[in-house]
Amino acid sequence: MRLHDPDFEQRTRDSFTQQPAMVTLGVGIESVAAGRVVLLMPHRADPTQQHGFLHAGMVATALDSACGYAAFTLMPAGAGVLTIEFKINLLAPARGPLLQFEGQVTKAGRTINVVDGRAFQSEPGSAERKLVATMTATCLTVTGRDDVRG
Amino acid sequence: MRLHDPDFEQRTRDSFTQQPAMVTLGVGIESVAAGRVVLLMPHRADPTQQHGFLHAGMVATALDSACGYAAFTLMPAGAGVLTIEFKINLLAPARGPLLQFEGQVTKAGRTINVVDGRAFQSEPGSAERKLVATMTATCLTVTGRDDVRG
Amino acid sequence: MRLHDPDFEQRTRDSFTQQPAMVTLGVGIESVAAGRVVLLMPHRADPTQQHGFLHAGMVATALDSACGYAAFTLMPAGAGVLTIEFKINLLAPARGPLLQFEGQVTKAGRTINVVDGRAFQSEPGSAERKLVATMTATCLTVTGRDDVRG
Amino acid sequence: MRLHDPDFEQRTRDSFTQQPAMVTLGVGIESVAAGRVVLLMPHRADPTQQHGFLHAGMVATALDSACGYAAFTLMPAGAGVLTIEFKINLLAPARGPLLQFEGQVTKAGRTINVVDGRAFQSEPGSAERKLVATMTATCLTVTGRDDVRG
Repeated sequence: MRLHDPDFEQRTRDSFTQQPAMVTLGVGIESVAAGRVVLLMPHRADPTQQHGFLHAGMVATALDSACGYAAFTLMPAGAGVLTIEFKINLLAPARGPLLQFEGQVTKAGRTINVVDGRAFQSEPGSAERKLVATMTATCLTVTGRDDVRG
Repeated sequence: MRLHDPDFEQRTRDSFTQQPAMVTLGVGIESVAAGRVVLLMPHRADPTQQHGFLHAGMVATALDSACGYAAFTLMPAGAGVLTIEFKINLLAPARGPLLQFEGQVTKAGRTINVVDGRAFQSEPGSAERKLVATMTATCLTVTGRDDVRG
Repeated sequence: MRLHDPDFEQRTRDSFTQQPAMVTLGVGIESVAAGRVVLLMPHRADPTQQHGFLHAGMVATALDSACGYAAFTLMPAGAGVLTIEFKINLLAPARGPLLQFEGQVTKAGRTINVVDGRAFQSEPGSAERKLVATMTATCLTVTGRDDVRG
Repeated sequence: MRLHDPDFEQRTRDSFTQQPAMVTLGVGIESVAAGRVVLLMPHRADPTQQHGFLHAGMVATALDSACGYAAFTLMPAGAGVLTIEFKINLLAPARGPLLQFEGQVTKAGRTINVVDGRAFQSEPGSAERKLVATMTATCLTVTGRDDVRG
């Protein structure tokens, strides 16, 4: 995987802070590496469904962000990222208390990037964690569009 | 498609009001029919991503609810619904101002249900609407589990 | 949907005959329209799995061809089509005796096309048919590559 | 992952030989372990598409078999396996000359199994291989049905 921008970490963190959806869900960055982003979220009530589990779509929201930003780390400065499709498998009800969302680039193309994501839940302070969801996302590298940048 | 519960509409509306995630997103019910649910959402800032569009995962959240409740209308009273996987294609940036999410059952099985969803955006008062996303979801009919009910 | 090439039908039929996989499966063209292709296949033993049903991947092969060529009808002359991803739901065992595969373009973009497919089985001479599978495919319009043309 | 049948390897190899689709494609077994199956296929002309690459659906056919049999290794004797849905991403044109298809169980449930697959191509005698496709499949454990057994 070729790295176009040595300042990818700062660029990724700056863009992440501009996602109101992440503030709404209380999702933060655990780590940013080339081709890999890990997000963290404590379980909370407002994104749950009728059984008290994190809504499948909310798991997808955090995983999609992890995947999209994993792709973003490998893009040239000034490019924007757009997810064109993803598939998610929910393996177990997500109820926290801690949730981790990993995005890892599988194939970085010039415009089309394929990224795999995994969501885990754990108890605070425990080394054990349980896989609760997997995702595969296709993300576009978007250049030359003022409405999709950074 | 066989209907197990003539009171499906009230049962569906009652369950929907127990989804905090729908309150968080400002999503309401437009209509409930056997095998079909339509949800409505005015665009707002807190579920957006870094370009001001509705976050792909948030589109997925509302579409997954439309799909899950479409399946739920055909289930016996007392059963619960769980999405085990879905795939979404984002066809155009979702920026509203009005968003509609349609879930329509394609195959209702005894335990496995396949549901297709479509998301549209439109101007208030306009009859024209634009398709912004499509989903296929696989939803389980869950019976005999106290933590997944209604 | 904009049509770039008025000769799309002949171009599509010509390319289709160059797919050895379709000969191997005994799949032929039922109809070609702008944005829509229907393929036909009589059930046979060699693409089946261990229970005598058509192998899920073989259903996918015919459906992917229907989807890819549906996208191809709307492309400029000289362009090639490549599927970058698809998802299929198998709704019922496919055992024929007649199988139909419909591909219908949902969104035709400049380079990215989203196509939906449906597979049906029926008795010869019967008007009734049963939905056995659904697909959503993302297909690329490829230009300027000698190895992916027509 | 719990193993229900210590004779899983023989049971898996016996069932595999009953898939005419694998004979049609020239696919054989490389290895069978608990929760993991690897298949092998030399590139050949009859499953190709119009550009001489292995047809996306044929890649899917071999990968789906690897995934389905990976799930099958963990099932009780007498159970059958049915794929209810899968998603595949095609990362690079598959043209061999050697193709490997790996299926690895991610979650084995009582009836629902989630399996991930990867397809590689390589030169004979070379240790290097290239990832050409990834799949996630949902496979059912089917018991008590005479038409889906073993």
